[in-house]
This record gives sequence, C-alpha cells and structure tokens, in this order.
Amino acid sequence: MPAYSTNMRLKFPILALTLEIITIILFGVFVDYDDGKHGGHGAHNTTHHKEKKDPLTLYPMFQDVHVMIFIGFGFLMTFLKRYGFSSVGLNLLLAAFALQWGLIMQGLWHLDDGKIKVSIFKMINADFSTATVLISFGAVLGKTSPVQLLIMTILEITIFSINEHLVAEILEANDVGASMIIHAFGAYFGLAVARMLYRPALRNSHENDGSVYHSDLFAMIGTVFLWMFWPSFNSAIAESGTDQLMAVTNTYFSLAACVLSAYAVSSLVEHKGKLDMVHIQNATLAGGVAVGTCADMDIGPFGAMIIGFVAGIVSTLGFKFLTPILASNLGIQDTCGVHNLHGMPGILGGIAGIVAVALGKKKGSAAMQGAALASSLGFALVGGTITGLIMKLPFWGQPPDQNCFDDSIYWEVPGEEEEEGEESLAHGDQKAEA
Amino acid sequence: MPAYSTNMRLKFPILALTLEIITIILFGVFVDYDDGKHGGHGAHNTTHHKEKKDPLTLYPMFQDVHVMIFIGFGFLMTFLKRYGFSSVGLNLLLAAFALQWGLIMQGLWHLDDGKIKVSIFKMINADFSTATVLISFGAVLGKTSPVQLLIMTILEITIFSINEHLVAEILEANDVGASMIIHAFGAYFGLAVARMLYRPALRNSHENDGSVYHSDLFAMIGTVFLWMFWPSFNSAIAESGTDQLMAVTNTYFSLAACVLSAYAVSSLVEHKGKLDMVHIQNATLAGGVAVGTCADMDIGPFGAMIIGFVAGIVSTLGFKFLTPILASNLGIQDTCGVHNLHGMPGILGGIAGIVAVALGKKKGSAAMQGAALASSLGFALVGGTITGLIMKLPFWGQPPDQNCFDDSIYWEVPGEEEEEGEESLAHGDQKAEA
Amino acid sequence: MPAYSTNMRLKFPILALTLEIITIILFGVFVDYDDGKHGGHGAHNTTHHKEKKDPLTLYPMFQDVHVMIFIGFGFLMTFLKRYGFSSVGLNLLLAAFALQWGLIMQGLWHLDDGKIKVSIFKMINADFSTATVLISFGAVLGKTSPVQLLIMTILEITIFSINEHLVAEILEANDVGASMIIHAFGAYFGLAVARMLYRPALRNSHENDGSVYHSDLFAMIGTVFLWMFWPSFNSAIAESGTDQLMAVTNTYFSLAACVLSAYAVSSLVEHKGKLDMVHIQNATLAGGVAVGTCADMDIGPFGAMIIGFVAGIVSTLGFKFLTPILASNLGIQDTCGVHNLHGMPGILGGIAGIVAVALGKKKGSAAMQGAALASSLGFALVGGTITGLIMKLPFWGQPPDQNCFDDSIYWEVPGEEEEEGEESLAHGDQKAEA
Repeated sequence: MPAYSTNMRLKFPILALTLEIITIILFGVFVDYDDGKHGGHGAHNTTHHKEKKDPLTLYPMFQDVHVMIFIGFGFLMTFLKRYGFSSVGLNLLLAAFALQWGLIMQGLWHLDDGKIKVSIFKMINADFSTATVLISFGAVLGKTSPVQLLIMTILEITIFSINEHLVAEILEANDVGASMIIHAFGAYFGLAVARMLYRPALRNSHENDGSVYHSDLFAMIGTVFLWMFWPSFNSAIAESGTDQLMAVTNTYFSLAACVLSAYAVSSLVEHKGKLDMVHIQNATLAGGVAVGTCADMDIGPFGAMIIGFVAGIVSTLGFKFLTPILASNLGIQDTCGVHNLHGMPGILGGIAGIVAVALGKKKGSAAMQGAALASSLGFALVGGTITGLIMKLPFWGQPPDQNCFDDSIYWEVPGEEEEEGEESLAHGDQKAEA
Repeated sequence: MPAYSTNMRLKFPILALTLEIITIILFGVFVDYDDGKHGGHGAHNTTHHKEKKDPLTLYPMFQDVHVMIFIGFGFLMTFLKRYGFSSVGLNLLLAAFALQWGLIMQGLWHLDDGKIKVSIFKMINADFSTATVLISFGAVLGKTSPVQLLIMTILEITIFSINEHLVAEILEANDVGASMIIHAFGAYFGLAVARMLYRPALRNSHENDGSVYHSDLFAMIGTVFLWMFWPSFNSAIAESGTDQLMAVTNTYFSLAACVLSAYAVSSLVEHKGKLDMVHIQNATLAGGVAVGTCADMDIGPFGAMIIGFVAGIVSTLGFKFLTPILASNLGIQDTCGVHNLHGMPGILGGIAGIVAVALGKKKGSAAMQGAALASSLGFALVGGTITGLIMKLPFWGQPPDQNCFDDSIYWEVPGEEEEEGEESLAHGDQKAEA
Repeated sequence: MPAYSTNMRLKFPILALTLEIITIILFGVFVDYDDGKHGGHGAHNTTHHKEKKDPLTLYPMFQDVHVMIFIGFGFLMTFLKRYGFSSVGLNLLLAAFALQWGLIMQGLWHLDDGKIKVSIFKMINADFSTATVLISFGAVLGKTSPVQLLIMTILEITIFSINEHLVAEILEANDVGASMIIHAFGAYFGLAVARMLYRPALRNSHENDGSVYHSDLFAMIGTVFLWMFWPSFNSAIAESGTDQLMAVTNTYFSLAACVLSAYAVSSLVEHKGKLDMVHIQNATLAGGVAVGTCADMDIGPFGAMIIGFVAGIVSTLGFKFLTPILASNLGIQDTCGVHNLHGMPGILGGIAGIVAVALGKKKGSAAMQGAALASSLGFALVGGTITGLIMKLPFWGQPPDQNCFDDSIYWEVPGEEEEEGEESLAHGDQKAEA
C-alpha cells in the first residue's frame, strides 16, 4: 500500500508548524519577562547588586530538572532495541512543545497586569508540566504516531493545568514533589489512553518490544540522571531555606533506600536470583516519586527512607506480576510500565501525604490531601479516556501492529553495522510498506 | 606501505609535549589567581563571607558551559560509525589545549599588574574560545590528523582572540551569546580550512562517512546536552540580574520554537515524510546560535521564538539542499554540516542583532553591529584560508583518502562485537595499511 | 552444576534487605535534619531570607559530585564488553548503600545533641566516602559477586571513616581533594583485596576482559563527566571564597595539562604511535587526583599544571608497563588499573602536599602531611587484606573463573542484536550453568 496513512509528509509538518505559530502569537499577546516587581515579596530594587534575591537563584535547580526531562525521560525510554530515535527524539519534540504550551496554560491562571511574566520559577513549572506528557508517552511508547502524540500533548497539558490549579489553589493541598499532580496524573492519564488504543494483535509479545544489551545501557543513562537529580525535582519549588533542605534530604535518602529494596526484590523474584534490568532502570526511581508529596514535610530522614523502601518493593513487584495482568486481563498495554514507576508510587506518595498531614508534619488538611489525590486520579482517567478516543480517530497516522516499536516507520534509519547498513534499511522500509 | 606518514609516533608526542611545556612556562610568567581586587566593581573585602559577591557565583553556569564543550560537542560528532573515538577523544584533547591557550590569548589584552588573574568569568571565556575550534573541527572531521588539528587550534584561537578584542573593545558591539564571534567565526574558519583541504576522491560518499543506529544515539547525548545548557552559554557572561534572566529566557524559548520548525521541515523534505536524524541532531540547536547576539536584548520571548523558528527552518533546509551543493560545486566538504548549524544561524544572529539594536532593544550602534559581523566573517575566511594552507603541508600526517573517517588509523581499536573482535581489528588494520 | 553457589536468590536479597532495615533503624536513632543552629558559624536566624547563608549554597557542587559518583564512576567501568550492566548497575547499588552507611560512620564522630544533623556539606562527604568503595570496586571488577561487594562496602567505609577522622581531626592534615584519604586509600585497599582474591587461571587474559567499540564510547561518558566535574570534587568542601576559587582553578588547569601529557605518552608507547583508549579513559583524569591535596593551596596555576602534567605521564606509563607486572609477578589483577589512576597519582598528590606545606603554601606541618599519607596507605593495605580474606570465604557466591567479566551470571541479559537475541541469551545461560 504505497499511500499508507503512516506517511507523515503533510499531516505532521502542518500540525507542528501551525501549533508553533499559534503558540508564538499567544506568547506575543500574553508573555513577558519577569521584571521582579510582581507578587508579595516586596519591591525589588533594580540596581545591579540585588540586596535580597538574584533572579537566577533557582537556575541550577532548573537545569537539574531540565536534564531530567530531556536526558532522563528521553534516554530511560531508549531501552527498546529499535525505538531509540523515537524515544529520545520524540521526547525532545513533545517536551519542547509542552513547555511552551504549559507555560501558557499554567500562566493564564495567574496573570499579572494581563501578562504571564516568565521567571525561572515559571520555567521550572513549565518543565514540570511536560513531565506528565512524557510519563503518558511511556505508556503508549511504540504504538502511536508523532501526530497523535502532539494531540495528546495539547489535551493533557490543558487538563493537567486545570487539575493543578484546583489542587494547589482551591484545595490548597501540599504536593511539592508532585506525586499526585504529575506522577499519578501522568500515569493514569497514559494508562487510560493506552486502554483506548488497545491492540489485541500485540497480546503476544512483539518481536521489537524488548531490549538489546546496548539499548539497556543507553536506558541507564536516563535512569541515573533521573535518580541523581530527583532531589532537585522535589525541592525546586519548595520554600527556600529549611523546607528546601528537607525536600532535598528526604528525597536523597528515600531514593537510596529504594535502590536496596528494588535490587533485593528483583533478585528475589527472578530466575536463579538474577537481577532484571527493567526493575533496575525503573523501580530504583520509585522512591523519588513516592516521597514527592511529603518531601518538604518534617517526616525525618527515617520516614523518607521507609517510604522509599516500600516504593522500591511495590514497584518491582508491579513490574513482575501486575503489568502482565493489566495487559492480558484489562487490555492495558503499558510499554514502559509507568503504572509501576509513576502510578502506584504516586498513589503511595499521595497517601503518605494524607498521613503526614494528619500527623501534623505540615500545615494542611488531610481531607484536602485526599481530595487532591482523588481529583488527580479522576481528571487523569476521564481526561485520558477522552484523549484516547480522539487519538483513535483513523487519520492521525497510527502505525499498523507489525510496525509498532520500530523507528523506521517515522525515521530514516541507518543499519546497525556498516556491513549490514543497506540491508537493514531495506528491511525497515520493507516492513513499513508491507 | 609500512612506513606511511600517518605514523604519529614522534610527531604527535613531541608537538603535544612541547606545546604543553611552553604553555606551562607562559602560565608561570603571566597567570595568577584572581584576588578579587581588580576591575571597576568596587573593592571587595577579603572576609570569608563576602557581602556582595562570592567568587563562585558564576560557577554553575561555568559547569553548564563546560558540559557543552566536552560532552555536547564531543558526543554530537560521534554520529560517524567508525569515528567515535576521534570525535570524543580529539574533542577532549583539542579543548583541553584550547582552554589553556585561549586563557592566555584572551588575557594578554587585559593584563592586571602584568598578570592574567583567573576568575570563573575568565574560565568561562576560555571555554568559549575552545568552541570556535570545536566548530571548525566539525567541518574537517575525519579528514585531519591530530597534529594538523593542534596546529589549527593554536592559529584559530589566536586569530579568534584578535577578532574578539576588536568586536568587544574597539567596536563595542553586542554579542553576548557569540552568534558572530564564535559561531559564525568558527564555522567559516572551518569551511575555509575544509576548502583548502579539499579531497576530490571523497566526492562520492566514503563508506565510513555515515552513521549506524547506535552512533546516532550517542550523538543525541551531545545534542540534548547542548540543547539544555544553551541558555547558560548565552547568559553566562551577561550582566547579572534582569539582563541575565532575559538571556536565559530568550534562549530557552528560541530553542523550543526551533525544535518544532526543525522537525516539521525535516519531515517535509524527507522521503515519505520521515524524520532525518542529521536534522534532529543539529538543526534543533540552531535557535540557540541564532538568538545569541540578541539574547540579552529586550526583544520579548515572542521575538526570540521567531528567531528560533526561522533558524530551525534555515538550518534544516541547509542540510538538505545546501551542503551537497557546497561539496560538489565549491569543493567544501563539511563533514558535520557546521555551515547549517553555526554558519547561517550565526549570520542570522548577527543580522538579528543589527535589527534589534537599530530598534533600540539594547544600547549600541547598528553600524558597529554590522562591522562586528563583517569583521568576524573576514577574520574567519582569511584566517581559515591561511591556516588551511599551513595544515596542507605534507608532513603533518594527514590521512589518505581511503582511511578517512576511520578511528583505526590513529587509535588502537577493538572489534565491534566479541565474536568478531579479531576480525574487525584485522579489518581496520588492513585498511590502514592497504 | 545446576545448584552452583553463584545463585543469589536468597543470599543477596536477605543481605540487602537486612542491611537496609538496620540502616533505617540507625537513621531513626541518630539522624535528623540540619536546623542551622550548630557549629561555630554563629547563630542563623530562621527568617526566609537568610542574611548570611542559604543552606543550599553548596547544592550545585553537591550535584556535580553526585554526577561523578553515579555517572562518572558507573560509566567509566562500562568499557568491558559484557560487563556493562554490572558496572553501572552495581555502581548504583554500592554507592546508594555506601552513602547511607558513610553518613552514619562519618557522623558518629561529630554528634550534635546526640544527632547527626544532615546538611548539604554532610551529603557531599557521604558521597565522597562512596568514592573509596567505587575505586576499590574497579580493582576487583568482574571477579566478585554482589554479596561480596556489599560486604566490602560495609568494611571499607568503616575503616575509611576511622582513617579520615585520624587524618583530619588528629593529624590536622590538609587533604581538601582527598588525594590521600580517598584516592590512595581506595586504590590500595582495592589492590589488597584483589591480591587476596588472586585467580591464577585468569593469568592469561580472559576472553571477556576487554572492550568493544561501543563499550569504549560508553566508558568515555564516564571519563568526560569525571573530568569536567573534578574541580567541584576538589573544591566542594574548601573554605568558601578565595580558597574555593583556588581549588577550582588549580584542578581545572591540572586536568588540562594532564590531558596533553597523557595523550602524548600514550602515542609514544603504543604501536605505530596510535592512541590507546585505556589511557585516554583513565590517565587524563590523573591530574585531578594528583592535585587534590594541594588544590586549595597557593601553588599557582603553574604549579598545578606541573602536577597534572607529571600525573598524566606517570599514569599512562603505569597502564603500559606496571599493570602487567603487578598481575604476573605480584598476583594483583587490577581490572580497571586503579593503581594507575588513583594509586600512584594519589601518592603523588600526598607528596606534593608535603612539599607545598613545607614551602609554606598552606598552614600546616609537613610531618603531619607525611603521617597522613602513611596512615592512609597503612589503613588501606591492612584493611584491604583483612577485607579480602573475609570476602574469600566460600559462601558469598564468588563467580567461577570462566564466568568472570560476564553480566549473565548475575543479570538477565538480552541479546546484542535482535537477530541473535535468543542465541546470545542461551549462550550466556549456557556458560553460567556449564
């Protein structure tokens, strides 16, 4: 079929250019630099040596978060043997668009003289909003076209911004590390989309739905950068001073404890006590997710470690036992296992937050914390279902089953080795045209 | 030919050791630590808790730039299937020498009590100077020996320092992100060298002048780190405070817009609407180059995005249509396509700067901006031509045509896979000696 | 042998879970957040805008060190063709445990109201303590089980903390960049362990004890991140202000000079003047090790460069000539050559420190510097020997000779290429069960 609908020639460029032009116009109307004069922090003077606060104080934290988004998420998904270009490449595309769209969607709730005034703080939040999309991307990785993913980005960021506003401003719930509003939200949104895009033909594992030795090493680049910089993610928007230090400390130790439990359980459940790269790449990070809501609460390093320890166990067991069940019984084909890394640990984080607030570890209401968790899950499931239905429309260039998990359908792909270059390329094209 | 002149046994070690010893002596004579007492910023006191400014304030920005130089440029060039060792290894060698040489060449214009007093600011500038060499390296990648490249480094850094002094101190032109003095300069210098080193036999593509699947993923490590930290590059030496925040913000949004246009145009011009890794690895960065001169000007996030958007288009079209013409018609074989990533976007940045200054977005003279652009191009073309002629002298160990783009001529190279280790090694040696 | 003792099913999970639970209990008893009220820096107030010092001032430095530990060390060791999972994976496991254990072992010497109060400064020191273990890990890489390595971690961190206390508090020696207490200590500790675990059968090189093309590129990710962030390692705990700037500057230039000498000597000693990746990956870093003790001393950039220059030569020559002798004559099989990267350069750093203090470059006593070096070597050799004897006990799951340097004994390993996936996996299992 020469004119197969996966041909992106016109659909994708037109959509991408149109979105960017609309975005630029919206920026022209709404977005300006932060002049340091807004908000309740008192007037800043405009001399070169600010007495109180350099506008770039948060910049190193921002860069850590930036690395998590673009290297962390991007390379974590390169574990698939023939889908590395899409993993890191579409990650870049989606995040670059999402951060622009997120800045507007989040900023519209807080206009200042009719403008969104961009500060490093707002750039961190824009990066945060992209994380929801990248988490959902993990659930549908390998089974969606760039056009579908751009549509998901627009809708998910928009719905995310509504839920975030509700949780933070109306419910006034605590979620400094975003266990609920990013991780649980992004995971269940993605799972709902995946449910809508269910492919019965992929029930028996696809030949390309797996890793090779080197692709697992590329993925570890993503894992380790996420692991290292997670303390920045959970503390970037915390109150500066002691709260921020607590957020860093709690996340650091939660992650460390999580590594031990994830490794232990991986060995416990695998054949002959071996370690499984899927668990190591993912479950070692669950401690960062699960401690998110409580990160800036006075739970003690000890409390943070218990949360991380449990998260590592839950996440590893999820990969081993739950993911296959979700796929076979519920029709949810979760490529990266985001349910185990972001979904369950996100809920665990939300529950830990309810408990911690009830115990007085932070000002707030346990009921509002519970409402925030429920709201995040509700918006995710309903929003993801609707988004999935829209993405299912037959003209977005969705790949046929046999071309899933294969870069060559949307990318010019060279061969693996010089000797087999031509052959592999032909192989790729052949499949795409088959 | 057993005693082929590519044997580096004596030439390379003698040159490298001699250069380093000379450099150490020059450091002994000229270089000292910054004691915080120089310059017009008013006297610093020497108590441990400085009231005004910690000497390490710029250190996180420095480290971001450092990552761009050593990881960014180094891995970006690993896209070649058999030239990864040279890409990342010679990148390290050249940059390590260039930063020492650059510190002296830049510092000699600004002696303080007869000394170059090293501060983080000066270290950032030294790193900057290496970027010009690494850009030019991209133009001649795969076709030059380490000895030739060290010679290019000495000459290029020296010429760069003269032009930089002229642009910044005499013309007093704005170029905070160095679109003109680094990117355009480095690109056209490299293209002039490449023209001098033209190899007619490589007119028909060399079998090793291409990527394999994994090498493209290694290159993406470079791309993404460059992309993420470009806001630091463009803002590192900006006036602290609002100007620096503007530089960060403008670069962040220019790059984001550039990604969308580069992806769209790549899909538009490629076979069946597929994306091309060469474009994604390079053209997505053009927005960082093009917004450089204007980065700290009040052009609005909106203005920055337009610059990035255009740069993404120009750069991608350059890769697709211009690079082949340069190679076949003008004898300029630009291995990495630096003309598309640094050359044209650098000129675009220079022109944007002229327009922005003319519109009053920053203090300055549009004429001086124009003179700065002309000066940068002039020094680059003349300097590159002379440098290329010197590099062409027949005793620098230049590789023969058939060994271009092949690590095994200058490196001990293991096999690709364990099973074929011996075989591949033999293959490599065979070619080198053939 | 179907029930071969390398089966980790129960041993490893039980040990890991037990260690983590004990650690969490110890944290519950001893560890609390830093409230900023301790120490002699004068009382901090608790308003949001601290006058003097944000508790996160050192956070960017901490993150640089963090990257060195987890990416730097982890990927540096991925050079082995079939041991990448273990290199980066066990590196993560050991470091995650070591930082928790290190925080307690170091903190017990400095209790504050009976508590270890965690600050960024203490987190940096905890990360530092892990470096000793990771250096020793390099010496025994490929020849030890995860259980053996966890035991080594506990013992080594404990012994390290005693020596560190002795050197810093009793001898009051200078060692800001830890040439002696981390690098020399970690190297000779590891070499002593390696001596105890000597395997005569590996005298003739093992087929998997080598690199392939891509694994050398992965290793360069580690090398370059270590190289870039070493100035942070050597300056992180320096006195803020001029001392810290000196530490950064000295390390930056020492490393740059070291690159030139390492490349030159590598070419000088190799076949046909080619460069050897083993030297480039390792010896280029020796300048960072060797300048460690003197980093915050007034030795001049010139002095730092001489140290780096010599270190690059010594380290490269060590790899070429000394490592084979150690293996064949002394029964010390040093997989990564830590003797050349950390051992000799560490001693060189210690000696440079003695000389510099004797010349009055820093307050202190040359005799105490010498005692610190002797103490570090003594604790390392004795501690490493005892630890090696314990690790040699036959029930820790040590791999048989033929399975050394092979991930598949402790990891579920996919095939290298999709076409040969099944085959390779079978190959791996076959060997493990043979």
